[in-house]
Amino acid sequence: MFSSSRPDRRPMVEVLDLDIDPPHLGDNRGDLDRLERAITGKGFAPLRVHLSQVEELVRRMRKNRFRVRIVLGYASRQWEIVDILPRFSWEPVLGFAVDLGTSTIVFCLVDLEKGEVIDRLSLPNPQLPYGEDILSRILYAGDANNRKTLQQLLLDTLNAGFGSMLARHGFSSGNARALVVAGNTAMSHFLLGLDPSNICREPYIPAANHFPGGHALDLRLDLHPRAVLYVFPNVGAYFGGDLIAGVLASGLHRSSEVQMLVDVGTNAEVILGNRDWLVACAGAAGPALEGGVVERGMMAAEGAIDRVRIDASTIEPSCHVLGDVKPSGICGSGLIDLVAEMFYAGILTVQGRINTALDSRRITKQGGVPAYVLVFGSETADGADLLVSELDVGIFLKSKAAMYTILAVITRKVGIDFTGIRKFYIAGTFGNVIDPAMAIRIGMLPDLPVETYSGLGNASLKGAVSTLLDRSLLDDAEKVCNRIAYVELNVNMELMNEFRAALFLPHTDSRLFPSVRIPGKARI
Amino acid sequence: MFSSSRPDRRPMVEVLDLDIDPPHLGDNRGDLDRLERAITGKGFAPLRVHLSQVEELVRRMRKNRFRVRIVLGYASRQWEIVDILPRFSWEPVLGFAVDLGTSTIVFCLVDLEKGEVIDRLSLPNPQLPYGEDILSRILYAGDANNRKTLQQLLLDTLNAGFGSMLARHGFSSGNARALVVAGNTAMSHFLLGLDPSNICREPYIPAANHFPGGHALDLRLDLHPRAVLYVFPNVGAYFGGDLIAGVLASGLHRSSEVQMLVDVGTNAEVILGNRDWLVACAGAAGPALEGGVVERGMMAAEGAIDRVRIDASTIEPSCHVLGDVKPSGICGSGLIDLVAEMFYAGILTVQGRINTALDSRRITKQGGVPAYVLVFGSETADGADLLVSELDVGIFLKSKAAMYTILAVITRKVGIDFTGIRKFYIAGTFGNVIDPAMAIRIGMLPDLPVETYSGLGNASLKGAVSTLLDRSLLDDAEKVCNRIAYVELNVNMELMNEFRAALFLPHTDSRLFPSVRIPGKARI
Repeated sequence: MFSSSRPDRRPMVEVLDLDIDPPHLGDNRGDLDRLERAITGKGFAPLRVHLSQVEELVRRMRKNRFRVRIVLGYASRQWEIVDILPRFSWEPVLGFAVDLGTSTIVFCLVDLEKGEVIDRLSLPNPQLPYGEDILSRILYAGDANNRKTLQQLLLDTLNAGFGSMLARHGFSSGNARALVVAGNTAMSHFLLGLDPSNICREPYIPAANHFPGGHALDLRLDLHPRAVLYVFPNVGAYFGGDLIAGVLASGLHRSSEVQMLVDVGTNAEVILGNRDWLVACAGAAGPALEGGVVERGMMAAEGAIDRVRIDASTIEPSCHVLGDVKPSGICGSGLIDLVAEMFYAGILTVQGRINTALDSRRITKQGGVPAYVLVFGSETADGADLLVSELDVGIFLKSKAAMYTILAVITRKVGIDFTGIRKFYIAGTFGNVIDPAMAIRIGMLPDLPVETYSGLGNASLKGAVSTLLDRSLLDDAEKVCNRIAYVELNVNMELMNEFRAALFLPHTDSRLFPSVRIPGKARI
Repeated sequence: MFSSSRPDRRPMVEVLDLDIDPPHLGDNRGDLDRLERAITGKGFAPLRVHLSQVEELVRRMRKNRFRVRIVLGYASRQWEIVDILPRFSWEPVLGFAVDLGTSTIVFCLVDLEKGEVIDRLSLPNPQLPYGEDILSRILYAGDANNRKTLQQLLLDTLNAGFGSMLARHGFSSGNARALVVAGNTAMSHFLLGLDPSNICREPYIPAANHFPGGHALDLRLDLHPRAVLYVFPNVGAYFGGDLIAGVLASGLHRSSEVQMLVDVGTNAEVILGNRDWLVACAGAAGPALEGGVVERGMMAAEGAIDRVRIDASTIEPSCHVLGDVKPSGICGSGLIDLVAEMFYAGILTVQGRINTALDSRRITKQGGVPAYVLVFGSETADGADLLVSELDVGIFLKSKAAMYTILAVITRKVGIDFTGIRKFYIAGTFGNVIDPAMAIRIGMLPDLPVETYSGLGNASLKGAVSTLLDRSLLDDAEKVCNRIAYVELNVNMELMNEFRAALFLPHTDSRLFPSVRIPGKARI
């Protein structure tokens, strides 16, 4: 994880122990002024105290005879007093990082003193009944009451998540002093009760790119009321705070070398750059890459085949299944392996056709369309053959071609070629399990040395955790937003030609993939 | 008034009309970011938006098609958005200045656009039943529930004052965008619900010298909820925000010449200095100067004699009475006149004895003590003779001697003499009606050219009004607090000798008052 490589990182919330000189006739400053001076004198400046805090701060400082432990939060480039405790009290300083996904909300409970993730929890997004896709929810939220409903659903789920995670470890809500949220632009709007209507209408304008910092009490979240709340900024309707968090997790914005980050979901979001420049674009790479659409495709969950190898001589496969169960489908990484292995075993031609001339019980037809049986019904969860048809492969190749096209176009736009990319991060639900060699073989990823590739997993969540633990990333997030140049990929003839060329295995121009050998049987 | 002499003054709240470029595909910044940029681009930076404002700001900006009128408030060296209105709406931008006195609360309703005071209102301090003097209230407020009671009384009275003044002019509470409060240290604590207990215990520590800025909503005041709230800081238990406001009203902190400001109340508070240095002290000058204690003394209100002249040949007086009524007492300025005129008419000796040898029906006795009848019972409100006895004069002379002593000691402390003082401001309830020539004649004020003296009236209120109209004074207030050196006047032999010498009319050392002629009859 990016943050752990920086030993000088300082968390968003810090604890400061103070033995304050008590007042005397020669030093009769006011109590609050004395406290403020003691804090700012330790470098926590500028410090902002809210009027409503003064009474409690002074009372507790007096009660503890000027020996206090101060919990300080960093927000909007200022320090705030989150809490004041007795000098020798002990309680953990916790924070939550949340990846506010369209389908899934993932929580990390983080110990800010130890710099450790304590626990992790995923909950389904409670807005799913209002629309699987974000667009239907945005339309629904056009009405202010509906917007309130959608917001409250999120807040309730967040509170449920916070509560259960804290309780599981014997903590109380007051121990949680910070919350960092990474969500796409629409989800961030839902959380803050902002009207997302203009996100999906030309010219696609969010209510806000940068959200003011706040406190748990502003959203009535069950954390310490003055827990600092940070919601990652977005660059626009299509480039949300989740991606900004991802950039921070990769660290490419601080790199001297050119690096690339691809976050693969329903869209493929791509960031290319280094510490001097950043460009980004997004495109529909197709849900096939996540295991959707393809008939037996599924999310990377129990029962999903996530690894496939095929013996080229026998064309018999061996599969790895998630969980100790019979397979019920195939997920994204499994599909990449499958297509790559079918290609090298000569089952697939460079055009993606199934070689029906092969003599194997695994070559069959489904509704007249050639297909390959990956697992026979006797071994599957539902008793039906788990097969992949030529149609499935076609859909999949469109996705991989779209992905490659996006990568090629943006790289060309900035005037470099792929060999200029020194590090290539793959984020997303399958980002940490994808086998780069397989993805290269099918022409989905450029033909770079495999060590160039690095899986980031849930980069948004990692970026949120990193920010909790390294407050310098708060500034970085704003800088990344201000620096990033978003490139609109207009569908034009050039793009279409590029796309069509990428529909082949690995590509019509095999010079682009020198490491990929084309099997004889695949050439038809 | 100080502020009106500065044409470049800018109020604490400003209105900004914006025609914002609507978004388009070439400029797809978020709505809030667009609004913020438009505001900061006009110089209102740094700008701080609260998370809870975003939804409304964006909604109203869109509703008004990006043509809006923004009400901006300046607080804690940052700008805030107080309100967002349609571009061509008109409504007044009002503010309240409040002098939060121990006995009386005085309100000024101010038009911040025109720079004018619209109206003024005085209400008795509702805490009076809990103690006429501030000390009893401080003791009462040691209990948290009592403190709440005292605070709520103030808030209710403030709201009543705001409501009646706004209604009288057809305004609504939402029109009031700012509140500046000048009060002594204890009253400021009561207003903010802070424990004042340590103010009256050695080493006399306020809960806070500087109060964080806030909003009307923090105290549930019936103004616009986001009206900016500023409570003047104090320098300590005995030098409150009311005096800081007074300094600002005088402008002595910006003067190149040495100037002095005296605020006369139950205490005499004195500030001496210029733009480079400031010293302050306070001492009990005695309530006699405000018209208290002396038997027929009263506040400067209807029925009070505020001007007295005595014909030296007949020793017959002529009096001016406040209001079209018979006199019922004599106020501070009247007393100064009376004693000064009795002295010049030979009725009083330099020691303050009544010359009973004079042949006049006005020389009488009261309980065996010589007295002078100022108004016979036939002309007074209560039918009783309005007279001043030798005891009254004695009490009064102690007050004037205390005042002169304080002025002399602090002036000597800084190594100058009175002639170094180029301007002498007199603030307080009688500050604008006192006749400096009379005050010099009795040795209460130093013998400087009368044009050196300038009455400021309610300087705290004026300072609060000036600050509403000139936000640069917010910084000045903090600077004055940080710069001021508070001098403790310890009662020692030197001070006692000084005091005893000043008990005479005008002083035992007549060289200090070269302009005052000593009448032959006064030398005994």
